[in-house]
Amino acid sequence: MTNASSVAADQPNLQARVTTPSRMKIALDAMGGDHGPAPCIEGALSAAQDFDVDVVLVGDEKVLADECRRLGSTDPRLSIKHAPQVVEMHESPATVARKKRDSSIWIATELVKNGEADAVVSPGNTGASMVASFFVLGLTKGVERPAIATSLPTLTGEAILLDVGANVDCTAQHLTQFAIMGNEYGKHLFRKPNPRVGLLSIGEEDSKGNEVTKEAFKILKGSALNFVGNVEGRDVYSGNADVVVCDGFIGNVALKISEGVAETIKKLLFKEISGSLLGRLAYPLIASPLRNLKRRIDYAEFGGAPLLGVNGITMICHGRSSAKAIKNAIRRAKGLAESRVDELIQRDIEESLAQSRLPEEPST
Amino acid sequence: MTNASSVAADQPNLQARVTTPSRMKIALDAMGGDHGPAPCIEGALSAAQDFDVDVVLVGDEKVLADECRRLGSTDPRLSIKHAPQVVEMHESPATVARKKRDSSIWIATELVKNGEADAVVSPGNTGASMVASFFVLGLTKGVERPAIATSLPTLTGEAILLDVGANVDCTAQHLTQFAIMGNEYGKHLFRKPNPRVGLLSIGEEDSKGNEVTKEAFKILKGSALNFVGNVEGRDVYSGNADVVVCDGFIGNVALKISEGVAETIKKLLFKEISGSLLGRLAYPLIASPLRNLKRRIDYAEFGGAPLLGVNGITMICHGRSSAKAIKNAIRRAKGLAESRVDELIQRDIEESLAQSRLPEEPST
Repeated sequence: MTNASSVAADQPNLQARVTTPSRMKIALDAMGGDHGPAPCIEGALSAAQDFDVDVVLVGDEKVLADECRRLGSTDPRLSIKHAPQVVEMHESPATVARKKRDSSIWIATELVKNGEADAVVSPGNTGASMVASFFVLGLTKGVERPAIATSLPTLTGEAILLDVGANVDCTAQHLTQFAIMGNEYGKHLFRKPNPRVGLLSIGEEDSKGNEVTKEAFKILKGSALNFVGNVEGRDVYSGNADVVVCDGFIGNVALKISEGVAETIKKLLFKEISGSLLGRLAYPLIASPLRNLKRRIDYAEFGGAPLLGVNGITMICHGRSSAKAIKNAIRRAKGLAESRVDELIQRDIEESLAQSRLPEEPST
Repeated sequence: MTNASSVAADQPNLQARVTTPSRMKIALDAMGGDHGPAPCIEGALSAAQDFDVDVVLVGDEKVLADECRRLGSTDPRLSIKHAPQVVEMHESPATVARKKRDSSIWIATELVKNGEADAVVSPGNTGASMVASFFVLGLTKGVERPAIATSLPTLTGEAILLDVGANVDCTAQHLTQFAIMGNEYGKHLFRKPNPRVGLLSIGEEDSKGNEVTKEAFKILKGSALNFVGNVEGRDVYSGNADVVVCDGFIGNVALKISEGVAETIKKLLFKEISGSLLGRLAYPLIASPLRNLKRRIDYAEFGGAPLLGVNGITMICHGRSSAKAIKNAIRRAKGLAESRVDELIQRDIEESLAQSRLPEEPST
């Protein structure tokens, strides 16, 4: 049922692109989210209209067609690609790789591999997105580990944090590659030629950190990146760095701790306000600023985190993504595909590997 | 100038206690905080009055005596012990151990070692507190690494997080010992016979984590602790566990990320509120609930984090501790000394080591 063009790519390591230059095409895993296909289709429709993008909804053809009808969608930029299987949230990446190659996430990723889409967006099981990208698209040449790069709100705008969960045990070399990949994403996202790259650590001084970060610090200090040194946890949100690098265990803890704190503050604030008569009287007056604040800190609204270091654009969204989050993720995926960030990463990684093979200059 | 009693302790590994059973005596490093001795002396005075505790102010005799006079303190429960040196915030633990053995933190710790005080409280350089405790008091028999155990506000009360910075590279065995130590602190703090002990990880499932946490999970599951399994970052603040265990790098990042999020939300909230006319009108009505909230989440108010695993009670406070935070830290230090938590930890660690030396039961 899809009418995606199908130019196959045989170039090794460089992803094929859809030939129609006029409009980017995004493959959306429309079955994976916690709230079913409705927010996906609503988000896709809104993205198609606002960003003039084609969206291939991947999933159960009947379910998706019914839902499109229910939502009154007749936009020709939306199409459907049938996928008979769905990956559930609890399924392990190994199960997905073995038994779910007809799932919506797998087939959506194959559309990118086959040049029938420019990027894949999924609000489903993160492990499934990763394993599909790993097997179907493959790792970028030279990249040892891919990384999930989320963006966080700061006092001054946004910052990128990576890795937030793809790799739990990392070496200094992995962190260095994350910095190179995050730098390319940062250049694209912030329209800055030299984003400030920091290393998440437990003190600003050069000597602070654990064994891995201390070694990574030395490598990054000698790199061509705009390395601003160690960044402490409290400074991630102050905007002192555009790109903050850490291993996936720490990044995931940091991200979820942040959600926990924001949620706790919200609940305590409501409790405090509703516990006082004046607070209750004031509530209608501050409801709107509070809603704005919630939107600002709720990362489900932010529109997905790319998996960097694979041959193509993969955007992973929160399972409970709203239509707005899906729309934002499509917008971001489109931008990454247009900028060919995956190819720029490949170039940078190759350059860095070539550099590391050069004989060291004698120290004077 | 101190009149602390001076019963020396020659018992190996068990800290001497002040003989006067009637009143606990706390040695306070009154020079180390960011705001000078004033908040220390105010906090000490208030603690002496409210908790009937003796406090030995350790630091420059003249400075402290002048400050006491300025504050009009004549409470006989406060005394001064002269220490000619001060450790600055930037000084490394190695420098402190080599060159600052006449500093307020070192001499305050010696008072505990010599039985002239029951606990030491310091709002100074954390590394200096650790190194002084390590050299002067010594590690508890059987403990491989000490741990700093902070407490965090949760939706239902408080939770203990350890380690938050004493050890950046930990083995599964270290994490297991942190769990044992945190359990004893939790029993004391929450008055619970079996606090729920969790392991900070990136998913609730048993299989989630990095190499070290996965190994620690297995050991903890087989232990006598009330182990509730993995705790995700977002659940630290929901109160699903009383004691949450992690390595000091991750714990420190988690703590500082939390501060960063809270600070950012506060600033964004004020911005949102002051940006709307209704918000500004409502502000006087919600100022008091906001202040309560701030107090609830500001860990400087919470009163210090003990260094567990040394022969004595050492309480480390934030450098920018207020008088109220110092007072709370003294109260908490007094409680830990009364409960002899350090000795209970020694007993538990010895039992766990004995247990691990037993031949394993054959699996059936």
